[in-house]
Amino acid sequence: MNTYNPRLWALLALIVSLNTLADNGEQSSSWTLSTSPNGNIAAEVRLTEGRLQYRISYRDRPVIMPSSLGFVFKDEPALMGPFTHVETSVREVDTAWTLPWGERKHIADHFTELRYKVRETADPEREMAVVFRVYDDGVGFRYEIPDQPGLTQFEIIDERTEFVFAENYHAWWIPAYRDQRYEYQYARSALSSLDVVHTPLTLQGDEITIVVHEAALVDYASMTLRMESDNSKTLVSDLVPWANGVRVVAQTPLKTPWRTLQIAEQPSDLFSSNLILNLNEPNKLGDVSWVEPGKYMGIWWEMHIGLKDWSPGDKQGATTERAKDYIDFAAEHGIDGVLVEGWNTGWEGEWWQRAPTFDFTRAVEGFDINEVVNYGKRKGVRLVGHHETAAGIQHYEAQMEEAFRFYERLGVKNVKTGYVGTRLDGNQWHHGQYMVRHFQNVAETAARHRITINAHEPIKDTGLRRTYPNMMTREGARGMEYNGGSPDTGNLPDHTTIVPFTRLQAGPFDYNAGIFNFDYREHRPHNRVPTTLAKQLALYVVIYSPLQMVPDLPENYEGHPAFQFVEDVATDWEHTRGINGVIGDYVTIARKDRQSDDWYLGAITDENARSLTVALDFLDVGTTYRAEIYEDGKNAHWRDNPEDYNIRTMTVRSTDRLDIELAPGGGTAIRFVAL
Amino acid sequence: MNTYNPRLWALLALIVSLNTLADNGEQSSSWTLSTSPNGNIAAEVRLTEGRLQYRISYRDRPVIMPSSLGFVFKDEPALMGPFTHVETSVREVDTAWTLPWGERKHIADHFTELRYKVRETADPEREMAVVFRVYDDGVGFRYEIPDQPGLTQFEIIDERTEFVFAENYHAWWIPAYRDQRYEYQYARSALSSLDVVHTPLTLQGDEITIVVHEAALVDYASMTLRMESDNSKTLVSDLVPWANGVRVVAQTPLKTPWRTLQIAEQPSDLFSSNLILNLNEPNKLGDVSWVEPGKYMGIWWEMHIGLKDWSPGDKQGATTERAKDYIDFAAEHGIDGVLVEGWNTGWEGEWWQRAPTFDFTRAVEGFDINEVVNYGKRKGVRLVGHHETAAGIQHYEAQMEEAFRFYERLGVKNVKTGYVGTRLDGNQWHHGQYMVRHFQNVAETAARHRITINAHEPIKDTGLRRTYPNMMTREGARGMEYNGGSPDTGNLPDHTTIVPFTRLQAGPFDYNAGIFNFDYREHRPHNRVPTTLAKQLALYVVIYSPLQMVPDLPENYEGHPAFQFVEDVATDWEHTRGINGVIGDYVTIARKDRQSDDWYLGAITDENARSLTVALDFLDVGTTYRAEIYEDGKNAHWRDNPEDYNIRTMTVRSTDRLDIELAPGGGTAIRFVAL
Repeated sequence: MNTYNPRLWALLALIVSLNTLADNGEQSSSWTLSTSPNGNIAAEVRLTEGRLQYRISYRDRPVIMPSSLGFVFKDEPALMGPFTHVETSVREVDTAWTLPWGERKHIADHFTELRYKVRETADPEREMAVVFRVYDDGVGFRYEIPDQPGLTQFEIIDERTEFVFAENYHAWWIPAYRDQRYEYQYARSALSSLDVVHTPLTLQGDEITIVVHEAALVDYASMTLRMESDNSKTLVSDLVPWANGVRVVAQTPLKTPWRTLQIAEQPSDLFSSNLILNLNEPNKLGDVSWVEPGKYMGIWWEMHIGLKDWSPGDKQGATTERAKDYIDFAAEHGIDGVLVEGWNTGWEGEWWQRAPTFDFTRAVEGFDINEVVNYGKRKGVRLVGHHETAAGIQHYEAQMEEAFRFYERLGVKNVKTGYVGTRLDGNQWHHGQYMVRHFQNVAETAARHRITINAHEPIKDTGLRRTYPNMMTREGARGMEYNGGSPDTGNLPDHTTIVPFTRLQAGPFDYNAGIFNFDYREHRPHNRVPTTLAKQLALYVVIYSPLQMVPDLPENYEGHPAFQFVEDVATDWEHTRGINGVIGDYVTIARKDRQSDDWYLGAITDENARSLTVALDFLDVGTTYRAEIYEDGKNAHWRDNPEDYNIRTMTVRSTDRLDIELAPGGGTAIRFVAL
Repeated sequence: MNTYNPRLWALLALIVSLNTLADNGEQSSSWTLSTSPNGNIAAEVRLTEGRLQYRISYRDRPVIMPSSLGFVFKDEPALMGPFTHVETSVREVDTAWTLPWGERKHIADHFTELRYKVRETADPEREMAVVFRVYDDGVGFRYEIPDQPGLTQFEIIDERTEFVFAENYHAWWIPAYRDQRYEYQYARSALSSLDVVHTPLTLQGDEITIVVHEAALVDYASMTLRMESDNSKTLVSDLVPWANGVRVVAQTPLKTPWRTLQIAEQPSDLFSSNLILNLNEPNKLGDVSWVEPGKYMGIWWEMHIGLKDWSPGDKQGATTERAKDYIDFAAEHGIDGVLVEGWNTGWEGEWWQRAPTFDFTRAVEGFDINEVVNYGKRKGVRLVGHHETAAGIQHYEAQMEEAFRFYERLGVKNVKTGYVGTRLDGNQWHHGQYMVRHFQNVAETAARHRITINAHEPIKDTGLRRTYPNMMTREGARGMEYNGGSPDTGNLPDHTTIVPFTRLQAGPFDYNAGIFNFDYREHRPHNRVPTTLAKQLALYVVIYSPLQMVPDLPENYEGHPAFQFVEDVATDWEHTRGINGVIGDYVTIARKDRQSDDWYLGAITDENARSLTVALDFLDVGTTYRAEIYEDGKNAHWRDNPEDYNIRTMTVRSTDRLDIELAPGGGTAIRFVAL
């Protein structure tokens, strides 16, 4: 509902006066201001010499200095001005909505919106608006190009959205336009050392942390950020192009994705931010009671560690018998599903080297899918579907409808998709409009069959799970598989202390923590999981995903006391709280189960041991809890002694403080059971 | 002198047997081993299926896995094998030599050398040798291509030196092939996230720190390191090309620069490494008593902070009167020289935008060079020469001989050169053979006139100061000027805690610490020096240069108690000791003056406050010292309160321990006066 707000009316008055100015054709109009509900964040827009500029500040400290806005088109004049001001509208919205599943249930949606519309002063006098939504946790802005005689069908050669940062912040980033897509460990450098990077881009200054990303990426190209003038503080949007160089094929009316800046005082405050979800459209799927968070196992890790293979033959991982082993274990331990990679035909030999030959409905010899599905049904365990495409989009789309229908018939609820390959159909970037359209197509097709998606080698997450709640989770970063040995460069111990502040600000991450057997050198002498066992548990809480994998081999879990935590830990949350964190060093997160009054806490560190003290004030006041603590043993070390851990329990209340000791590469996982 | 060494004779015996093997045409010869004098480092070479490979280990832990060696030539077959083994020779050398000036006086030169010579099995049967020198502090290896009928004049298209690292180390790096040459703040990432980087490249694993660089870069191209297979642990040498794409124009006999790996347990051990200097040729200039370390001031910072300008006119910095102010102050405070940027013609207007018009011997109106020089002579202060070329090499070389003769006549002892511009003569990279040859030319020309060089925008340092002691210091990194505001991106507080472990491993750095006035916002509202005052002092000890600038305006030093340290601190050292350090966090270095029994200590931190305890066991045993301590004040902070500092003195001996408190962006500078 809209509420009366004095700040708002003052603002409207101001705008009237400004409009007068602008309409009188002043060379440079004053800034038109919109502030966040709590007044901390200010976004401003103006015309100066006919060019559109914006700036952003936090607590009166500049964050974005005056930066220009506009487009370059193919076969049309650029839409960069000179402009004249047409109208300004402003509104404040204060409402709330519910996430069917997620890091939290109730989301406040409270923002001030500023709509600033301009028209070219010269022919063809095209109109464009820029819309700012200013929240307490950040700013989103987007372009709106209305349907108009001067502009209907067009191609965007360049979106010229400038980000002139006020300071040379520390930056956490991964490179764009490289062969491994999104799968790099994050680099830390001065902002001024950047070249071209993916979003989320996380920046840190004194008492301010900023995440630059985008929301609601629909039928457009992903935005990367490029430094054009080397060694500067200015980044410009660089939309991932089609193979022919065009960035976006568009038509009016056009609303671009939101360009977002999450702004927080402390890095751990980022875990309370809902900016990305708030800027997405509400649920379009209606009843989504069929979308269920949960856990799944998979015939998967045994391939990554070289014990088995995806290809049919002697080392074939996907067999009826092996699938039954997993189903048996899953059934005993309340795990919902079992993924079987390589069950369908097309995995023969070097499948990633050739044009895809996958048949998504035909099983290889040795795997009887009906027998497996029926065996699972008897045990209450579902098959998790798999659609590896080897980046062959056309090959996949030709079978897609049938493939999802096939899975629906078998009672499959979730499909893991995969797009291994440096280019799509041989020549398209992973993050261009071509792939954005494909993902939309997959989500909608899957939804018609009441199937949810876990996408690997995906388009980055921009919060579309709000609109399509069956877009549950995705990879889009270096996951556990890199420790298995493909390729032969393991993740460093600090990787998981960085991704919560970078990649996870975009959305859920199917990271696949939960490895219990640290010795697989027989097949992978140069690889290892760079954590302790306790950290593997803590990652279930730290790295959010509505679908959590239980990735190790059943025999590696069998009879293991620490497995109790994996069995207990929730996958759907009522609340999420960032407790502490230094990017790249350590992080602690607490979450409350949606299905019970229990809380869970995960604390992890990089390669350095640490002592943390955590105030338990996130716990419900007045409730007593049994804390079941899974922690590193005295001599635990990710390199030499990862399996040294202790389990202890104690009784705690919200007024207590807890001392946590983390080993090198270690972690602590706690279940707080409400008594 | 060569000394008898049992390990050596054992090794010789081994080699004889291996040669037999190889000569019998075995498919894969065993590894031929050479170990460091202390046995910790092992370098090995072999032929496998006719291809040349090497590997390196430290304390039996692999550092470089089997990696291939070879060349690709223009209009000639590649020199990559198949090879057959011709001969192996090994020797141990244990000698020592003296640095005329430097971080230390006496340098032990103790290594085992392995020379492994091969011949192509097929026509043209060219011969090549690879030579390894294994020291206790690292390994150097180079190619030797003898004069032979099959190879005389040739062009190198690619040097294929592989570095297959054993682990996915943490890497500290700056990007190569970018417009700002060498001037980036260092990024930290996993090795596997690299693209193409400059050397020195610093890598860190558990209990091992590695610096990859090169030594004795003469008439060859600089080596950058490129990751060819994305997301791997393998780097390959990428020589900076000529404008036409050729990497090196060569002729036999050819000895390439040494490819070097400094290997240390702790990062602070790197400050004891002499590998780069040891791999350079001895002094070729004979008597270099005319090469004198010291301090200099300059009409320079007032341009960088926008108070004055390099161009003639109202804001002209280079005036006779202003030069006399600097000379007066220098004379009072025992500072040897005064630099005057912009004194010669050619700085008019946007000099960096046009073909250079500098006249290196003609003064602009308002600057009487003879009057300034004579005034300086009376006061015992020399003019420091300046040769800004705006990257116009041909324009400079046409005047070079005359320009140095001119300065010699005026009694100038040191010239600061400059090469501002993204390409040399409009089309050559800064680090190609073209520039390497130019720097050689400059050094030799200057030496004939008994002039020393302080090069800005230089070729990276590869230790040639040993061979040409008049190559004293250089920039080649982001210096203080970036805090002045050109360009408008200041260095971050951690920059100076990284460069000692990266850039400074190559050699001296004319960083220009010593700013006392932190408020110049009138002209540079968005810039600041990101340190405390005490850290400015500490940097004189931490960042080694035989020529140290005293960069601030005389009026900013006048009557300032802390200036005493700048006046006292030595610039030539008997000993240097790394005391502690974590790359990017903090570092402490102690150095002993060559001209007295005094020691100096500098400790600096990044943006975080720290408490350090330093054992004074580096001090001479039995000597009592008066410690003159310049430290951050209780409320000091680089951002808000940089000028809060204390000076205190205490009496100490080598058995004492000292507690050091560092403010955010702070430092401590200590002079230990032998009593």
